[in-house]
Amino acid sequence: MRASRYLIATQKETPADAEIVSHQLMLRAGMIRKLAAGLYTWLPMGLRTLRKVERIVREEMDKSGAQEVLMPAVQPAELWQESGRWEQYGGELLRMNDRHGRDFCFGPTHEEVITDLIRNELKSYKELPANFYQIQTKFRDERRPRFGVMRAREFIMKDAYSFHLDGDSLEETYQVMHRTYCNIFDRLGLDYRPVEADSGAIGGSASHEFHVLADSGEDAVIFSTGSNYAANIEKAVALPPQGDRPAPSQDMQEVHTPGQRTIEAVSNYLRLPPEQSVKTLLVKGEEDENGQSGLVALILRGDHNLNEIKAENLPGVAEPLTMATDEEIENAVGCQPGSIGPVKLPVPIIVDRSAAHLADFVCGANRDDYHLTGVNWERDMPLGRVEDLRDVVEGDASPDGKGTLEIRRGIEVGHIFKLGNKYSKAMNATVLDENGKAAILEMGCYGIGVSRIVAAAIEQNHDDKGIIWPQAIAPFEVAIVTLNGHKSPVVAEAGEKLYEQLRQAGYDVLLDDRNDRPGVKFADIELIGIPHRLVVSERGLGAGTLEYKGRTDEEKQDIPVEEALSFLVQKAPKGGL
Amino acid sequence: MRASRYLIATQKETPADAEIVSHQLMLRAGMIRKLAAGLYTWLPMGLRTLRKVERIVREEMDKSGAQEVLMPAVQPAELWQESGRWEQYGGELLRMNDRHGRDFCFGPTHEEVITDLIRNELKSYKELPANFYQIQTKFRDERRPRFGVMRAREFIMKDAYSFHLDGDSLEETYQVMHRTYCNIFDRLGLDYRPVEADSGAIGGSASHEFHVLADSGEDAVIFSTGSNYAANIEKAVALPPQGDRPAPSQDMQEVHTPGQRTIEAVSNYLRLPPEQSVKTLLVKGEEDENGQSGLVALILRGDHNLNEIKAENLPGVAEPLTMATDEEIENAVGCQPGSIGPVKLPVPIIVDRSAAHLADFVCGANRDDYHLTGVNWERDMPLGRVEDLRDVVEGDASPDGKGTLEIRRGIEVGHIFKLGNKYSKAMNATVLDENGKAAILEMGCYGIGVSRIVAAAIEQNHDDKGIIWPQAIAPFEVAIVTLNGHKSPVVAEAGEKLYEQLRQAGYDVLLDDRNDRPGVKFADIELIGIPHRLVVSERGLGAGTLEYKGRTDEEKQDIPVEEALSFLVQKAPKGGL
Repeated sequence: MRASRYLIATQKETPADAEIVSHQLMLRAGMIRKLAAGLYTWLPMGLRTLRKVERIVREEMDKSGAQEVLMPAVQPAELWQESGRWEQYGGELLRMNDRHGRDFCFGPTHEEVITDLIRNELKSYKELPANFYQIQTKFRDERRPRFGVMRAREFIMKDAYSFHLDGDSLEETYQVMHRTYCNIFDRLGLDYRPVEADSGAIGGSASHEFHVLADSGEDAVIFSTGSNYAANIEKAVALPPQGDRPAPSQDMQEVHTPGQRTIEAVSNYLRLPPEQSVKTLLVKGEEDENGQSGLVALILRGDHNLNEIKAENLPGVAEPLTMATDEEIENAVGCQPGSIGPVKLPVPIIVDRSAAHLADFVCGANRDDYHLTGVNWERDMPLGRVEDLRDVVEGDASPDGKGTLEIRRGIEVGHIFKLGNKYSKAMNATVLDENGKAAILEMGCYGIGVSRIVAAAIEQNHDDKGIIWPQAIAPFEVAIVTLNGHKSPVVAEAGEKLYEQLRQAGYDVLLDDRNDRPGVKFADIELIGIPHRLVVSERGLGAGTLEYKGRTDEEKQDIPVEEALSFLVQKAPKGGL
Repeated sequence: MRASRYLIATQKETPADAEIVSHQLMLRAGMIRKLAAGLYTWLPMGLRTLRKVERIVREEMDKSGAQEVLMPAVQPAELWQESGRWEQYGGELLRMNDRHGRDFCFGPTHEEVITDLIRNELKSYKELPANFYQIQTKFRDERRPRFGVMRAREFIMKDAYSFHLDGDSLEETYQVMHRTYCNIFDRLGLDYRPVEADSGAIGGSASHEFHVLADSGEDAVIFSTGSNYAANIEKAVALPPQGDRPAPSQDMQEVHTPGQRTIEAVSNYLRLPPEQSVKTLLVKGEEDENGQSGLVALILRGDHNLNEIKAENLPGVAEPLTMATDEEIENAVGCQPGSIGPVKLPVPIIVDRSAAHLADFVCGANRDDYHLTGVNWERDMPLGRVEDLRDVVEGDASPDGKGTLEIRRGIEVGHIFKLGNKYSKAMNATVLDENGKAAILEMGCYGIGVSRIVAAAIEQNHDDKGIIWPQAIAPFEVAIVTLNGHKSPVVAEAGEKLYEQLRQAGYDVLLDDRNDRPGVKFADIELIGIPHRLVVSERGLGAGTLEYKGRTDEEKQDIPVEEALSFLVQKAPKGGL
C-alpha cells in the first residue's frame, strides 16, 4: 500500500476521553473512530489488524473440524422466551420492535438460535458430535461502555456451539477447543494463559478463560511456579494450611476496643498482626422451602479477602451473595458489624480453611467496642463447617501440590464452557440415540472476543512511542520510508523497486511515500507499530545501503540494498503467517 | 471436506412457502434456513458460496484503490436527523432505543455515518479523491419480506462512498467503479448487464444498475441489438417516431360506445387496432406556491404503458405520481375515467411522443359512453407539450440510433450512483480547496447486494435437478463420490488419495464418503450444484478408471485414474479463481 493513497489518520494529541492505553493508541494510530458511546468505526488501518485476527481464528477453527455458519444478528423474542432469558437478561439486551410490533433483540450471543437450528436439523446420534461457529457482529448494551473496543457495545465475536450425545463426547470436543484456542493465541503472537474459571450455577461442569497478560488487565490470573496450574481468582483454590492447628496457649479474654471497627484498627490497637485475627461477615442464607432465609456468618483470617463467587456457590448461602444490612446485623447479633465474632454467635457459621487453622486469635465479642483475644476453635466454640472462602494470595501453595502461586493481571479474550443441557433441555433439543430413544443433547460453547483481542494485544505490547505489533497481526509487516522521495527520483524509484520486491515475497508492505518530513513519517510508523522499518535515502543509496530498524531495536543498522529481502526473510520469516 | 463430517442438509420436498426457484433450491440444497420472516441462517454449504462472492468483491474493490472500513451496524438518530432522513425514511428503517432511551437505528445504508466520518477526517483537497467501502450486515424492515435471501430483511451488502472536490473527479471514480463492477460480475461468472437507471430527484446526475439476467427477474432490462445501449425500463428512452405526422384524412365524429370503458373494449367495439387510439390518464399536478395543485392529463397511444418514473420526473407533475380519483375526474371533466379524451379537456395535457404522431385516432369524448373517431392534433385541439411518457417496447428504435430495442428480465444486484452534494451539503462536509476556501464535497455511492447475488446466480443457473454453480462461487468445485467406500477399502483409499491430490492442486473438494446409496449421493451433488463430479467405484478401479461428469454434461465419461488431475485442470482451470 502506498501511504500517499491511504488513510493514515494519526493524531498527536492523546484524546481526553480515552482512559486506557490501547484506546488512546488506537485513536492516535488512526485505527478506530468513535461514532457514539460504545460504537466504533474501524478505519482502514485498524481493519487490517482486525481481519488478520479474524483469519487466524477462522483457519484454526476450520482445522479443528468446526463448521462455519452465519446466523442473523436480529433474533426473535420467542426463542429467548423459550429459554427463559427474555426475562432474565437485563438491560444489556438491546430489544426492539419491527414494523409489525413484534419483539426482537440484537443478539449478544446465539445459544437460542443455534439450539433451534440444531433441533430442526439433526435427527440422529450418528450426526454427532458437531461443532458450529460464526464470526459476527454482536451487541451488548453496556450501561457504561468505555475503554474503546475493549468494552464496546457493538463488537465482533467468534462464538461456537458443540452438540453431543454424552459428556464424554463433550469432554473430547472441549479438549479440542482448548488446544485450538492455544493454537490461535500462539499464532497471534500474544503472551496468554488459559485458566480454570468458575462455571457458575448453569450446571456446566468445566470452564476455562483465556487471558492475554497485561499489567492493565482487569482480572487477576493465578499461576503455579511449579506446574501448569492456572486459574482465575474466582476459581483458584486455597488449600488448607499444612499440619495440625496449633494447640491453645492463651486464655480467652474480653478486651475493650473503643471505636476500633476494622481489622487494621483493632490489630494496631492490640499490637497484633492482622493474620492473628478473624473477620466475621454476615450474609443472607439460602431460602428454605417456605421462602424464608436467615443469615449465615463467613469467617476469614483478618488479612484475607472474601471470594464472593466461592461463597455464593456454597450450599446454604444465597446467590447472588448478599451482605446483611447493619439493621439485620443489629437485630440478629445485637452489635454493629465491626464487633461481630464467632463466639456465641446466634447464626450458623462457615469458616475459611485458613481461619480454621488459627489458634489464640482475636475476634469481635458481639458487643460494641469489645473484642476477644486468645480465642481457640473447639475450646471456646464449635468449629462447624470449614470451606474454601477466600481469594488466594501470592505465595500460597499451588492446589496441585507443586510450587506456589503467583498472581498476574489479564484481559479475558476467550472462554470455553461446558453448557451441559441448560438450553437443549429448555428448548427440547434431542436426537435419537442408539436405541432409537430421544436423548437431550449435551452442549459446549466457545467464545473469542475478536475485536477485543486487538485492544488486548496493544495493552500487552506498546511503549511510549506507540504500538508494538506481533508480526502476525500488524496492519503492515514492513514500512519502507523514502526520504524526500518527491524531490529525489532516485530515492522514489529505489523505494518503488523495494516495495515491489518485498510484496512479491509475500510481505504486507506500507510504502511511506508521503511528502512529509522524515521525523513525521518515522513517528507515524512507530505509533502505528509496524514491526520492521527500512529507510531509503539519497545518502544511503550513494553507499549502496538501506537503513533497517526493528520496532523495538535500540539501534539502526545499514544493510546492502541487494540484501534487503534476504535480511528481512531472516529477521521476519513468513512461516508464522 | 469430507461429507461424513459436514452438514449436508439437503431436502427432497420443495418447501411450501418458497415462491421462487432460488429460494426453493437454497432451502433444498441446505444453504440457508429461515429463523423468522426475512431472517436467514447461512448453513455451512451456503456460507461457502457467500464468502466466495464476498472475496471476489473485496479483491476487486481493493484493486480499484478503494479502502475497506467497517462502520457500526447500529447508528445514532442524530446523524439521520441532520440529513433529514430520520423523518423521511419510512417503515423500512428499524428504529430502537438503547437502555438510556436514546434513538438508534439498524443501518439500512451508511451515507450519514461515512459523511460524518469524512467531514472529521479529511481536511484538504490533497486528500481527495477517496473511496471507502465496507462489506457488512444491513437491515431493511421490508413490509413483506419474501423470496428468501433475494429480499430478506437482514442481508449483506458491499457499500462504497467516494468523495471529491468536483464533478470531474467524481466522474473519474464513477467510471472506475463501473469497470470494477464489470470485473466483479465477470469473475462471478454471471450473465449480467449494466444499464442506465433513473437517478431520481436526488439531483444525482448519473446512475447505473447492474442486473443479473434471469427469466424470473422482477425488472425489465432493455438493450439495443445494434449497440451497447442498455437501460432499465424506467430510464430507457422512447424516441419520437420517424417522419412527419400523417395528415388528417377523416372527419371527427362522436360515436356511441355504451359500456365500453377500456382501450381493448373500445377497439374491439369499433373494430380498430388499439394503436389507433389514445388513452388519457389524469394525475395530480405539482403544487403551486400556495400549496394548490390541479390535475394534469397524460396522453398515450392505446397500446403503450405509462412509465410512472418518466412522468413524475416532469415539471408540472406531482412526485410521487398520484392518479386522480374517480370523484376528482367527475368533478373536473364531468365523465367517468373510461371516457376522457384530449378534445376540449378542461385540464392541461402532456402528450407522449408516439401519441403525438397519430392521425385519425380514437379517444374518449369526455361524455360517458361516447368516444370520438377521426381525431387529429392541431385540427381538433392544440397538441401542447410533447414528452417521453411511455415504457419502451421490443422493436422500438434504440435511442442512440443504432439497432432496435430488446427486453429481457433482470435481478438488480448492483447500483452505482452520483449522489452529488445531497449529504455533504446537509451535513456540511467540506475540505479546503486550492485557494484555502471550504468546498462542499461531491459524493458517489456504489452498492452491491452480496447475499442477493447468491440467489440471483441460482435464478440464472439451475435445472430440474438443482443448482448449476459457476465454478468461481460453487461451494465446492469438485465432488468425489465413493461408491460403497464403507465396504470397500480399495475404493475408500482411492477416494482419499484423489481427494488429497486435488486439494493440493488447489481445488475445493467435497469427498462424499457418506454411507448412502449412490443414487442419494448423486442426487445431492446435483442438487447442491457442484460443477465437477468424479466417481470412484470398485468396477472402475478394476479397469483403472474414474467416471467424470460435468454438472451440465449429458454423458458420463471414463478417465484413467492417473490422469484425473490433468483432466480436471484442463476442464476447470484454477486461473479463473
